[in-house]
Amino acid sequence: MEQALLGSNGRAATTLFNVNPKSNPRRPSSVRMPVATAVAKPCTRPSGRWEAIHAEIEAHLKKAIPVKPPPVVSEPMHHLTFAAPQSTAPALCVAACELVGGGRDQAMPAAAALHIIRAAAVAHENLPLTDRPEIRPPVAHAFGPHVELMTGDGMVPFGFELLAGSDDPARGNSERVLRAIVEITRAAGSQGTVYGQYHEVEYLLSRRRDRRDPEWADHVWAKKEGELHACAAACGAILGGGTEEEIEGLRRYGFYVGMIRGMVVHGGGRREDGAMKTVEDMKKLALKALHGFDEGKVEAVASILDANMC
Amino acid sequence: MEQALLGSNGRAATTLFNVNPKSNPRRPSSVRMPVATAVAKPCTRPSGRWEAIHAEIEAHLKKAIPVKPPPVVSEPMHHLTFAAPQSTAPALCVAACELVGGGRDQAMPAAAALHIIRAAAVAHENLPLTDRPEIRPPVAHAFGPHVELMTGDGMVPFGFELLAGSDDPARGNSERVLRAIVEITRAAGSQGTVYGQYHEVEYLLSRRRDRRDPEWADHVWAKKEGELHACAAACGAILGGGTEEEIEGLRRYGFYVGMIRGMVVHGGGRREDGAMKTVEDMKKLALKALHGFDEGKVEAVASILDANMC
Repeated sequence: MEQALLGSNGRAATTLFNVNPKSNPRRPSSVRMPVATAVAKPCTRPSGRWEAIHAEIEAHLKKAIPVKPPPVVSEPMHHLTFAAPQSTAPALCVAACELVGGGRDQAMPAAAALHIIRAAAVAHENLPLTDRPEIRPPVAHAFGPHVELMTGDGMVPFGFELLAGSDDPARGNSERVLRAIVEITRAAGSQGTVYGQYHEVEYLLSRRRDRRDPEWADHVWAKKEGELHACAAACGAILGGGTEEEIEGLRRYGFYVGMIRGMVVHGGGRREDGAMKTVEDMKKLALKALHGFDEGKVEAVASILDANMC
Repeated sequence: MEQALLGSNGRAATTLFNVNPKSNPRRPSSVRMPVATAVAKPCTRPSGRWEAIHAEIEAHLKKAIPVKPPPVVSEPMHHLTFAAPQSTAPALCVAACELVGGGRDQAMPAAAALHIIRAAAVAHENLPLTDRPEIRPPVAHAFGPHVELMTGDGMVPFGFELLAGSDDPARGNSERVLRAIVEITRAAGSQGTVYGQYHEVEYLLSRRRDRRDPEWADHVWAKKEGELHACAAACGAILGGGTEEEIEGLRRYGFYVGMIRGMVVHGGGRREDGAMKTVEDMKKLALKALHGFDEGKVEAVASILDANMC
């Protein structure tokens, strides 16, 4: 199952999910992820460690976002950055960096970039458009569509600026920073989050028309959550100076964390047969991806599998 | 006049234009740039040199844009990338790189990134939104708003990917590439293009309400064209290995080129007293910014002042 999901080179999701879902005979039916399927399970509260990392990323962002005039620019940017539902991806980036021996500060700009770039994507997917009927639960808009569109457009370059500007010639980390930028551009771009958003709208429209097409559904969490978390964990490992083996192990781990998060947290509240078993299978694969790391340290990263259950 | 426009540190537009236009007592009235003012002047056709650079950037982009499935992603990206009105900024980036002794290939990824990121901004400013009435001449849309929104969202990370991925450890150019990324994030972001787009809508709405506020107008070309061209020329100089003096000289030059381009090409067809004189003053300042460069090479860059007149 792991090879089927990851492809022969072990790179999470890039081979399997970049092809047209309708023409992919290699996808085993047992790993289908229904978009609107939640798994009923008792919640575990996020641990203090994860909450502390989230708080640190938020503090970093609050300090970084310019409070330059005019307020019409800085206020919506502050609002949309922190209004988006919290993602586990930025915190996973920090934890992955620490697991490979890096310091928290080495991953913080990448974690902040991941947070702000994802928040911009959330703002744009909630924009009311003339050809995109309201297919999700209505969202409260603090600003009009024009300001929310432009603010999202300003947030993405700002995220990349935070990361590119963290280059420190004294540390000689330029190449790591550039590699992390490429990772994030791919996860956020037209073969990543944007592709997932497109599939999600198609899927939700097909449900509305009572012509639900589950094939589309498989790809939404892979693109919107699986690949985002895979990228986040890989970036942490890259910036922390991990080996190629560690980077790819954490990429696989992140992919499963994201898929589980998509199914369990964003699932939508309905229970579906087999979903619980799929989540359990994914947890096993996630833990397997952490084999070979320092056993004394691995629990700090693995605990996200419980922390992200609610 | 030059100091008034550029600020005491010589960095084009960053000091002067980041403040609220309504509260800026330092702006001399003689440098006001009316948004919708064109200067009637016989056209000079772009020279073969500039056309050749444009063609090379376009070929680079055509090769770079993925033709991966599904067509719903790659077709709109191709279309919107090349549908935007041509900008002189990417070609200026290449020419600036050559002026400081760099090779054309060193600037090509940055030029391509500038092209695609600006094209995404054009796509988003043409999106029909419920709170943004049609204030510009109507634009033909090849795709619906949902696809055009998402495609623009994919184009920006792709532009940064092109640039970040051009890092070549053998050349040791990582720090230059990172510096160029920071330059572009600033020119494209909430203090750059996005700010200009916001001002432009305010200005066009005020004209429509017959309460034209010329103070807003000053900022539109500074943000949308002046700073974009300043960034492009500075990026070319950075990537070509220019000195700090050369980088700042070319930044000033680019700023004036962009301002002239904004006034003359995008002006809107109306003639206004004083505009022609302002353009001539700007040309002089632009040429002054090129003092100190190799006289034998400078004409190749200065010729854009004629080439961009139509």
